[in-house]
Amino acid sequence: MKNNVLVNFNNFKRTWNVESQLPVSFTIHYSNDIFDPKNLDLIEYGTSKRRLVVIDKAVNELYGENLKKYFESISFDLKLKVIDAIEENKDWKHTDEILKFFEDEGVLRRETIIVIGGGVLLDLVGFCCSIYRRGIPYVKVPTTLLAIVDASVGVKVAANHFGRRNRIGAYYPPVATLLDKKFIATQSQREIVNGLAEIFKLSLIKSEELFELLENNYDQLLREKFQLGAIPVRVINMAITGMIDELQPNLWEKDLERPVDFGHTFSPLIEMNNIQTMKHGEAVVLDCLLSSCIAFNRGFITEDELKRIFNTAKNLKLPTWHRDFGNKELVLAALEDTMRHRNGNQYIPIPVGIGRCVIINNLKEEELISAMNTFEDI
Amino acid sequence: MKNNVLVNFNNFKRTWNVESQLPVSFTIHYSNDIFDPKNLDLIEYGTSKRRLVVIDKAVNELYGENLKKYFESISFDLKLKVIDAIEENKDWKHTDEILKFFEDEGVLRRETIIVIGGGVLLDLVGFCCSIYRRGIPYVKVPTTLLAIVDASVGVKVAANHFGRRNRIGAYYPPVATLLDKKFIATQSQREIVNGLAEIFKLSLIKSEELFELLENNYDQLLREKFQLGAIPVRVINMAITGMIDELQPNLWEKDLERPVDFGHTFSPLIEMNNIQTMKHGEAVVLDCLLSSCIAFNRGFITEDELKRIFNTAKNLKLPTWHRDFGNKELVLAALEDTMRHRNGNQYIPIPVGIGRCVIINNLKEEELISAMNTFEDI
Repeated sequence: MKNNVLVNFNNFKRTWNVESQLPVSFTIHYSNDIFDPKNLDLIEYGTSKRRLVVIDKAVNELYGENLKKYFESISFDLKLKVIDAIEENKDWKHTDEILKFFEDEGVLRRETIIVIGGGVLLDLVGFCCSIYRRGIPYVKVPTTLLAIVDASVGVKVAANHFGRRNRIGAYYPPVATLLDKKFIATQSQREIVNGLAEIFKLSLIKSEELFELLENNYDQLLREKFQLGAIPVRVINMAITGMIDELQPNLWEKDLERPVDFGHTFSPLIEMNNIQTMKHGEAVVLDCLLSSCIAFNRGFITEDELKRIFNTAKNLKLPTWHRDFGNKELVLAALEDTMRHRNGNQYIPIPVGIGRCVIINNLKEEELISAMNTFEDI
Repeated sequence: MKNNVLVNFNNFKRTWNVESQLPVSFTIHYSNDIFDPKNLDLIEYGTSKRRLVVIDKAVNELYGENLKKYFESISFDLKLKVIDAIEENKDWKHTDEILKFFEDEGVLRRETIIVIGGGVLLDLVGFCCSIYRRGIPYVKVPTTLLAIVDASVGVKVAANHFGRRNRIGAYYPPVATLLDKKFIATQSQREIVNGLAEIFKLSLIKSEELFELLENNYDQLLREKFQLGAIPVRVINMAITGMIDELQPNLWEKDLERPVDFGHTFSPLIEMNNIQTMKHGEAVVLDCLLSSCIAFNRGFITEDELKRIFNTAKNLKLPTWHRDFGNKELVLAALEDTMRHRNGNQYIPIPVGIGRCVIINNLKEEELISAMNTFEDI
């Protein structure tokens, strides 16, 4: 019997090339009334009669009873882990606590974990699933507007470490994301505004039509909390579709010039600086506004467009100014910090009109300061 | 301006499918005299004039001066981290220590780490690189025979956790693996035997020709430590080629029926049970021998072949018996533990003749005990 692989005898300079492709595929779909026993979406992934669920503490307080009743009525065994998924707990200690839950329950290598919560929990448990036994499957159930339009699509999972946001993590897609917008009904207005921030950001670089939906329907969206009629569905659908369109060709961020990084150039450090008072979406929108001022000064957007942008932010109850964006040292340090994550490049997305963007890599200090002045004066 | 993505208005039941492919490609090649300043392989990957190197303590004691002189003569800035990469240190504490090294040096997102050591260090630093900033590139320089034929090809990285081997980890390929078999010259005979164990394992399931090379040249290989002539090169080349042939189609282990798991069914728990005294290769070979007894009892290999297998193991100074393999409770517990990692299946590779194998999933307890008796009596 001979080996079927050819080896040149006595070849001291041999080179091998290993080539492969990892196919990735997952589904995002609506699953209305997810805890209705007639709806079996939640337990679709898996073969045994038990399911492991990691749920956010705040969500568990509101929906924990429904979840338990759901598992009782379908006669499945529920193994529940509750995590207080606030940003401060998105750390290694809580990563390890979730890993320990998997270990204690003797999770199999192909056993699917169900995660029910906002972006912080989805990121954190996704990270746990990415490293436990070198990766186990998981299903995302986002419970906030922000997570429905953002974490539901992305494959980035992470924990904070060394006092840095998302310092350890992976690119690890779920097997599925289930959307039930009823969860939004129990969010506070400030949390809904936090989600609107991400949609606002996306609209500026991706879709004038989506921007106009926000511009014309801000009051209904805020008042009815996305529960009634066709407009909120259209807003969510356009946001998710736009996000997929941006992320799908670049899931692993091989390309560091990313339009969806709009609003994420100056904001990370400033958000960390105000961790107790500033929401993620608020920091992102302030960054979008500064970036829009850069675009305006370059003549990429008109004065009328700049005003529409600021007005819509205001109508969506988003902040349109924060003193940290007037702090030269801080804004420069924030840019420098972000450049490290972009391998030494600026790669700042700025809008061109409303609904398109370009990525610039040649911003000078004086141009930035002049944009900061425009921002402050508007 | 209209968004170019179609969304059905008012579609509450919308489904999105996200599809992508992660292309993976890396090179394994010889790099003789890797610390010779005329050889620039070590610094090939990267753009700046500095390189971060993580090195095993034992390797640093032998080659640290060469490494420093190398960087001096090519005028590159060397940032060095020394890790005592013994199995007991393959844990989160040391993972975190290496991550801290990256953080303190302000590693950029595309900055390449060089790892010089055996399998434990390659696994551990590979894991760090897989999670730091969601993944930074790294180059493997294996310094043991075992790592040259095993870790050099694989993409599995990990740390031990909860007292379990490789409980947290990832599939994370390097950008390149550089082979310098001069490192083997400074290994002890027992360590070389540890590497021969992995080659022996592979030969049984993959190549009778490779098995015959071991069967006929064991004395030269052990005495000359792979330094002289064509035979050691041919052995290494065949082992690497065979390993790539097995691993490349299944890099992410989507398929849990893996021939290269031969020798890894009963051994993991028994190895952990004897962590102070038993080397990985020794545990693997003992498992190969028990699995060969199962194959013999099923009539898949002849008595003559079984004897050649045991004789060659003996000639390679590998163990041919250990009392733990006579311990019924322990062997059964070991199988059960492994099945959890194979999602509840046995998937035991056993040889068919020498150079081929099948994977069985129907081993009964009495058949296992009868094979244990054969093993003990031989």
